[in-house]
Amino acid sequence: MAGWQQPPYHFGSQLLSWLAPEHIGPVEEVPVSVPDGSTLPMEGGIVGRSALLRQLHDARALIDKHQPDRLVVLGGDCLVDLAPFAYLNERYDGELAVLWVDAHPDIVTPEQFQHAHAMVLGNLLGNGDADFVEAVSRPIKPQNVMYVGLHDPGEWEAGEMERLGLQNVGPAQLAQQGSKPVLDWFKSTGAKHLAVHFDLDALDPAFFRSLLFAKPDIAEGTFDDIAQEELKIEQVVQLLSEVAKVADVVGLGIAEHLPWDALAMKNMLARLPLIGKPNVA
Amino acid sequence: MAGWQQPPYHFGSQLLSWLAPEHIGPVEEVPVSVPDGSTLPMEGGIVGRSALLRQLHDARALIDKHQPDRLVVLGGDCLVDLAPFAYLNERYDGELAVLWVDAHPDIVTPEQFQHAHAMVLGNLLGNGDADFVEAVSRPIKPQNVMYVGLHDPGEWEAGEMERLGLQNVGPAQLAQQGSKPVLDWFKSTGAKHLAVHFDLDALDPAFFRSLLFAKPDIAEGTFDDIAQEELKIEQVVQLLSEVAKVADVVGLGIAEHLPWDALAMKNMLARLPLIGKPNVA
Repeated sequence: MAGWQQPPYHFGSQLLSWLAPEHIGPVEEVPVSVPDGSTLPMEGGIVGRSALLRQLHDARALIDKHQPDRLVVLGGDCLVDLAPFAYLNERYDGELAVLWVDAHPDIVTPEQFQHAHAMVLGNLLGNGDADFVEAVSRPIKPQNVMYVGLHDPGEWEAGEMERLGLQNVGPAQLAQQGSKPVLDWFKSTGAKHLAVHFDLDALDPAFFRSLLFAKPDIAEGTFDDIAQEELKIEQVVQLLSEVAKVADVVGLGIAEHLPWDALAMKNMLARLPLIGKPNVA
Repeated sequence: MAGWQQPPYHFGSQLLSWLAPEHIGPVEEVPVSVPDGSTLPMEGGIVGRSALLRQLHDARALIDKHQPDRLVVLGGDCLVDLAPFAYLNERYDGELAVLWVDAHPDIVTPEQFQHAHAMVLGNLLGNGDADFVEAVSRPIKPQNVMYVGLHDPGEWEAGEMERLGLQNVGPAQLAQQGSKPVLDWFKSTGAKHLAVHFDLDALDPAFFRSLLFAKPDIAEGTFDDIAQEELKIEQVVQLLSEVAKVADVVGLGIAEHLPWDALAMKNMLARLPLIGKPNVA
């Protein structure tokens, strides 16, 4: 899985920002070093641990500067929602509900896996690496979390989900029952405020292909053992529209946007005669 | 082939502009009506003929305003290169050479096909609908044209190519012989100045998918009878880099950029809670 650590997340985030509707309110960008091709070090069981902690604290400082009631996060990998959702749960007195639209549960610890993007919901629940958990002064209540789109979790993850009591509406259930199970869950929490984590890899790559697992030139079979896909964009839009009628949506994070074609085009244009920069050719 | 006339070419052009390297020099945008879902009328054997002629004359007026020595065109369908290449051949006294990187020859007339984007090189050579040809005061010399990437032309097109003496380096020949046949051709023309038409549908959709024929949700078989693909981005970059060492590249047109994922993302963001505009949901 070479290259996982430094795919073009930064570019994906910039493109999201360009594609987003016009808006009012302040915008901040968390500084992230431009990938230089070097391998991030393994530190205390987590790849790039110190760089990620630095980004986490930078993100929190930018949020605290504005102390917003609502915020949108354009990532980046799944870890981008750690500081914002931790903040929102403090802002709403520990009563935040969280809809986690994702193909993966994101609750592992360094004992199972060395990449922090797969740990972020675990951290928000108060579990995992001590320095990441320290950024979550009020852990989110497990009963206030609902997965959408999760399927085929690993054995350890399935056990941990059961231990914590984390609920899931999988792709098949969403297709059959629509938004009702999610609306029922939200009502059951008693929460008023909701944050939505939307990992784009929950989408079916046959219809949306700007995804890590849909990289055009990877060797066949590279990601065969990783849960992928299943939701259609229309299903997610429909679900979130209905949820927004009963919940005050105060957070939305878009993660894992990897626009391969746009990046290929940008790199190509930079190398073509006349339009490209001569020093790039 | 419903929907061909109005796919998101306008958006594709805007994204190209965002992806392009920074540059100096003036920028102009040819006004194009935003698609309103209505069907363009068939006029004199060409769909949307009057609207296309208006755009053609608008484009020419914008070029004449600046009278540039060189120009880049970010399309748009293939027809975007008609006014610029006609201008450049006047500017360089009828001696312009043209490299036409495309899966299709673009030389049909209204007798064979009703869409003008497939007629543009024919028009530049002085053939086809009189009002389009009138925009070409100095037709390009057929021997000054080289196709790259063309394969499987239709029977009428193959005959017309032979009649005109249009040469082609197909995908297989490019893969085997590299840039040499193109460099040899350019030398044989005696030309100093070169314009490059790059129809992205010359690229293999397995690696670059922002193409008409790679639309994610089309019915299987929709485009089975249309020549597609074959070139890799790297091959085109390599070829054009080598050509630029012997030719003064004075024109570059990028056509047929249809970024399906980016468009799907833009439309989705506009409909999501918090980030979207409420009146779009």
